[in-house]
Amino acid sequence: MQDRSGVMEKLASLGKRKGFIFRSSEIYGGLGSTWDYGPLGVELKRTVTERWWTDVVAKREDVVGMDAAILMNPKVWEASGHVDSFQDPLVECGQCRRRFRQDHVEGDVCPECGGPLSEPRMFNLMFKTFIGPLEDEGSVAYLRPETAQGIFVNFRNVQEASRQKIPFGIAQIGKAFRNEITVGNFTFRSREFEQMELEWFCHPDEAGQWFEYWLQARFDWYISLGVAREHLRLRPHEPDELAHYAKVCQDIEYEFPFGWSELEGIADRGTYDLDQHLELSGKDIRYLDPNTHERYVPVVIESSGGIDRTVLTLLADAYDEDEVEGEERMLLRFAPHIAPIKAAVFPLVKREEMPETARRIVEELRARAWNVLYDEGGSIGRRYRRMDEVGTPFCITVDGQTAEDQTVTVRDRDTLVQERVSIDSLAGHLSERLNP
Amino acid sequence: MQDRSGVMEKLASLGKRKGFIFRSSEIYGGLGSTWDYGPLGVELKRTVTERWWTDVVAKREDVVGMDAAILMNPKVWEASGHVDSFQDPLVECGQCRRRFRQDHVEGDVCPECGGPLSEPRMFNLMFKTFIGPLEDEGSVAYLRPETAQGIFVNFRNVQEASRQKIPFGIAQIGKAFRNEITVGNFTFRSREFEQMELEWFCHPDEAGQWFEYWLQARFDWYISLGVAREHLRLRPHEPDELAHYAKVCQDIEYEFPFGWSELEGIADRGTYDLDQHLELSGKDIRYLDPNTHERYVPVVIESSGGIDRTVLTLLADAYDEDEVEGEERMLLRFAPHIAPIKAAVFPLVKREEMPETARRIVEELRARAWNVLYDEGGSIGRRYRRMDEVGTPFCITVDGQTAEDQTVTVRDRDTLVQERVSIDSLAGHLSERLNP
Repeated sequence: MQDRSGVMEKLASLGKRKGFIFRSSEIYGGLGSTWDYGPLGVELKRTVTERWWTDVVAKREDVVGMDAAILMNPKVWEASGHVDSFQDPLVECGQCRRRFRQDHVEGDVCPECGGPLSEPRMFNLMFKTFIGPLEDEGSVAYLRPETAQGIFVNFRNVQEASRQKIPFGIAQIGKAFRNEITVGNFTFRSREFEQMELEWFCHPDEAGQWFEYWLQARFDWYISLGVAREHLRLRPHEPDELAHYAKVCQDIEYEFPFGWSELEGIADRGTYDLDQHLELSGKDIRYLDPNTHERYVPVVIESSGGIDRTVLTLLADAYDEDEVEGEERMLLRFAPHIAPIKAAVFPLVKREEMPETARRIVEELRARAWNVLYDEGGSIGRRYRRMDEVGTPFCITVDGQTAEDQTVTVRDRDTLVQERVSIDSLAGHLSERLNP
Repeated sequence: MQDRSGVMEKLASLGKRKGFIFRSSEIYGGLGSTWDYGPLGVELKRTVTERWWTDVVAKREDVVGMDAAILMNPKVWEASGHVDSFQDPLVECGQCRRRFRQDHVEGDVCPECGGPLSEPRMFNLMFKTFIGPLEDEGSVAYLRPETAQGIFVNFRNVQEASRQKIPFGIAQIGKAFRNEITVGNFTFRSREFEQMELEWFCHPDEAGQWFEYWLQARFDWYISLGVAREHLRLRPHEPDELAHYAKVCQDIEYEFPFGWSELEGIADRGTYDLDQHLELSGKDIRYLDPNTHERYVPVVIESSGGIDRTVLTLLADAYDEDEVEGEERMLLRFAPHIAPIKAAVFPLVKREEMPETARRIVEELRARAWNVLYDEGGSIGRRYRRMDEVGTPFCITVDGQTAEDQTVTVRDRDTLVQERVSIDSLAGHLSERLNP
């Protein structure tokens, strides 16, 4: 692993050049801190969401999925406490007019120009819009600042329809929006982001053990993506940083080049959310235990992860530089099952039917739903480098020997070793390495 | 197929009871026309998006994916024409204060109460919000009314990063928002919806043939989901209903119980969008042909489908009623590869190790990432009905004979035929029927 300073800048530049991540609306100068995923970025993002859904929902009988709307009745955000409490103290410089979160600056002068800062005023982080043609109080709606409330307000509907018994979970993937005053660190803190959230409903007596269970399960999940264990840690929240709804919380953090930062929070939300919705809606959304006939509000253990942050983690963790044949090489060391392009196939030269053979191999491998590219442009060395830069684990070359013995070379991104493999056994060879 | 009147009401009721679709924020009385997908609805939705992505992106070398932010620079919507032209004429009743789209009412009296209607005023359908703490013109942003523009503004970035040559496509799945004056027909017209869009970039000389190609490919795709061919049709737009950017457009329509309605539009957008962005941004986003060295603005053939409408189509097309053993049966005839629950496993009675055997079978089948349920509640007939209602194609029963010869019955939802199948060959038996 190289010195990691400067890695974020390199990732932003590589990300744009290779089609991982672009600034949103870049041709118009962008828009605050919002980002678009390009062809390779969307593959990474889909891999993250697919693996999460498979591991947290599809493989488990005790978790069901759902997908709530982004626009919800504003009473949801009164009940959740967001209308009153989801706010940051904002200060403005009297000289340069820049704005800061008061708790992000020290002293009362502007950190940019030294001008005087205003008194703080509270600023709600929910984006507001209006439904219908009138822009008044009665038509206000918010872009949800978290997906969790979509699960809580549907708790009873989902539980009854799915006939699940406690303990069980409801999981959701979706966009959330926060009108942050300060954004940055590439995609780490942006105003629009995607969450993967599991709300696990259990009996109050079992909350402690389930908290531990999910903490461990979620920590292990990031390792299953190939993230280096030494760059991951658990950090319990101090009592004074706990959210108003949380009894206990631990963050899963990754050591980014800019420091240890949160990927996911595991929290014991107690009965706070369901209690609030029960009170404000007047609807009895308690759980009825079919065995004991006890009716109670379950405790919620939440696992709330950021998809964009996970993608950024995969990029940062994979980024590396080394030297090959006296030349500096920039590469992404994605685990093969995570890499957006699984393999590339090259004809050594554009003659002797090498292109045709290479194209046939591409077609056979793509039929397995692997993202496999064909490339005939430039020297072999240059084609290897191009694939190293986007983290493609295997490069397959059709060469002079192929016509004789129906073998190709398979070159490994990390070891640089080239093995000769027969075309017939190529799919099996790759399959072993792509599905650990 | 039964008489289809009343089917939408039955679907809405079944949808809520079984966990397909709930009104958003239902415990607070909902919110306009927004909807939440429950456990079975989200499975259907995921099936639709997965199949679309596989067929339109993953299997094709000439299409790449992307995922743009919902919040974009407002200049995007100036260039696209949405700020000036994406509006409907709104009229309001002077008596009951209800609002209507002028082109949806006849005459100048309210269709609800007969009161006088106001003069029409133009109402822009984009939802507006503000980025940062000030709510003024300089901070306005819109929730995107279509995902397409996210593709157009990234055209050159994506093309260069992916090294695609024309003709090629860029595909995207994501939420879009329209502040509709009139909504309705269950989830058919809602203010928040999810699109699956392909923008296909080609040489102007080839636009006609690609339009035909995609029209046919997309029509066939709906049939591949199991939708009855006789409920699908193509409808060319009349010259006076063409959108301002479109040269030719045909809708793929489905015959809903409320009439033929649009599922997807296939349009020749010409060079309109790229021309507009080129002009307003001042950035040369033209394509450079590597062979002819010609620089030109490609023509765009668009396929723009609605995911929510496709899910609604699957539900409406699957809904049926018949009579089994003298009792009325309500069922969903999903094609097996579309059904949200693939199979259910029942112990005939709760003794003689039948539950254990049934649970073991569930586990084995779920390991294949099939959504398979265990159910031991109530009579076998009642359990069959429960699965018929949610469209589960196969019900597997462990009975007295199972312990003797290691076979179970597999009951077909549509034919009601029960076959005895050995447990060993069960996965193969189902696999043939689930993967056509």
